[in-house]
Amino acid sequence: MNTPSHIPLFGRIVLIGSGLIGSSLARAIHNQNLAEHVTVAARSQATLDVMLDLGLAKFATLDVAKAVVNADLVILCTPLSAYKKIAQTISSALKPGAIVSDVGSCKNIMFSDVAPYLPKNVHMIPGHPVAGTENSGPKAGYAELFKDRWCILTPGPGASHKAVNQVEKFWRQLGMDVEIMDAGHHDQVLALTSHLPHLIAYTIVGTATDLEDDLKKEVLKYSASGFRDFTRIASSDPVMWRDIFLKNTDAILNVLERFTEDLESLRNTIRHGDAKKLENHFNRTREIRRGIINAKQN
Amino acid sequence: MNTPSHIPLFGRIVLIGSGLIGSSLARAIHNQNLAEHVTVAARSQATLDVMLDLGLAKFATLDVAKAVVNADLVILCTPLSAYKKIAQTISSALKPGAIVSDVGSCKNIMFSDVAPYLPKNVHMIPGHPVAGTENSGPKAGYAELFKDRWCILTPGPGASHKAVNQVEKFWRQLGMDVEIMDAGHHDQVLALTSHLPHLIAYTIVGTATDLEDDLKKEVLKYSASGFRDFTRIASSDPVMWRDIFLKNTDAILNVLERFTEDLESLRNTIRHGDAKKLENHFNRTREIRRGIINAKQN
Repeated sequence: MNTPSHIPLFGRIVLIGSGLIGSSLARAIHNQNLAEHVTVAARSQATLDVMLDLGLAKFATLDVAKAVVNADLVILCTPLSAYKKIAQTISSALKPGAIVSDVGSCKNIMFSDVAPYLPKNVHMIPGHPVAGTENSGPKAGYAELFKDRWCILTPGPGASHKAVNQVEKFWRQLGMDVEIMDAGHHDQVLALTSHLPHLIAYTIVGTATDLEDDLKKEVLKYSASGFRDFTRIASSDPVMWRDIFLKNTDAILNVLERFTEDLESLRNTIRHGDAKKLENHFNRTREIRRGIINAKQN
Repeated sequence: MNTPSHIPLFGRIVLIGSGLIGSSLARAIHNQNLAEHVTVAARSQATLDVMLDLGLAKFATLDVAKAVVNADLVILCTPLSAYKKIAQTISSALKPGAIVSDVGSCKNIMFSDVAPYLPKNVHMIPGHPVAGTENSGPKAGYAELFKDRWCILTPGPGASHKAVNQVEKFWRQLGMDVEIMDAGHHDQVLALTSHLPHLIAYTIVGTATDLEDDLKKEVLKYSASGFRDFTRIASSDPVMWRDIFLKNTDAILNVLERFTEDLESLRNTIRHGDAKKLENHFNRTREIRRGIINAKQN
């Protein structure tokens, strides 16, 4: 990370939403001195109070239209289902040249739910910092969340290079590597690396919740053997994930189909007792892990 | 853990197999002074050399029958497929009153593949320390692996109480909590908490290995968002896991069927865009995580 001795990158940054990502952003922007002024908007006064108490915003409001007045950079940090309403509400309050970005796990949605409502003289630069934990809420945030992780930007074909560069610089100063990608491609890649794993974890932990009480207790007790990792993933924010599944449905159902076929095939290998084939499969998956360790994303 | 100032619990302990668990056991036995003498048997001289170099065994041999002569406690730490042959080989070399135990992830197998070959005057006390990492081999072991985890013992109905107590004491002195359970029940519980999660992780990581090269690279790059956890699980020892799937097939196929039904149901919920039902499901799975954190197995 850079040391925060420079002139702030933006005059006024507005964060809409103060959950894990929004509050982590507020902390990191503060630490890195990336804005002269940070305004936070959220749906509940309790959240705003936490942000003010922690000194993470100069101004905090329930009124998103009021929040974005004079903003240079507006970042949506809410669940995806709130995007359209927010875009409609802030539209007329945005100043010419303002940048509107986000941190959502789906990127096509910025073109379907946000772009149509923004004025022509505003720059939309969708973003996805690929970082997070299973915890949520403003107290769960921390400034180092973004460090050494990837941020994917998915500007449209006509996006201003200057605006893209500014947003890229922003994330780099928070310690992220930045990649530019097509929104649709992003949604396909993340369907496999993130959305499907969450779907599966939610399923298997759900399977366990349906067990009789005695067996359920034992499952919790002996969870250290694999199940535990799934419960961590499956404890991620319910509303955020509900929205991801509803907004990236096609890509998710598509990878789910591939997964289901592969699971069926592995099941048959087990049923037929094909030792050699099983071992080969497990050797191949072990190689993938080595690839990730080499890519330093372990 | 107890301080190792006592008289050793066993005169002569023999570990057959020196992978992650076997070598961790050797380290822990040494640290806790649980044996006067530790002998290690393994299939390869290279493994034995590592164990001798690390000072983890007084005597190391490729000959399992020779290894178990005069043993008070023999612990099988090999893949499950080796059990039957080992039982047949060591049978006539065991002294009366010796205890034969193991650390395998399936427990019915001790009754099918080991018990029939043991002399009547030997005590078989199957065990499963529910602890491990995705790493394997003698260098991956460490003495603290067992600390604060569960060890499940599954003695048969006619087992000697004294022998059970001794094995229980052994694991407790390594820092484990001990639970006695029916072997078949163990295999059902672990099918859900451990074997199914591994099967799923192996599948999804396999799905990724079948992708075109470009996409595969991206999957590795952005793995931090959920997929990474699956790759860790799916990098577990291929031979060990091959054997688990081949030895606990019925229980695994049974929980797999429940999982597949639940996945199908969640897929339909997504396809139908049922927001409320999704959110409810995710709230329920989050509760399970809280249960695990309360059970201190997180």
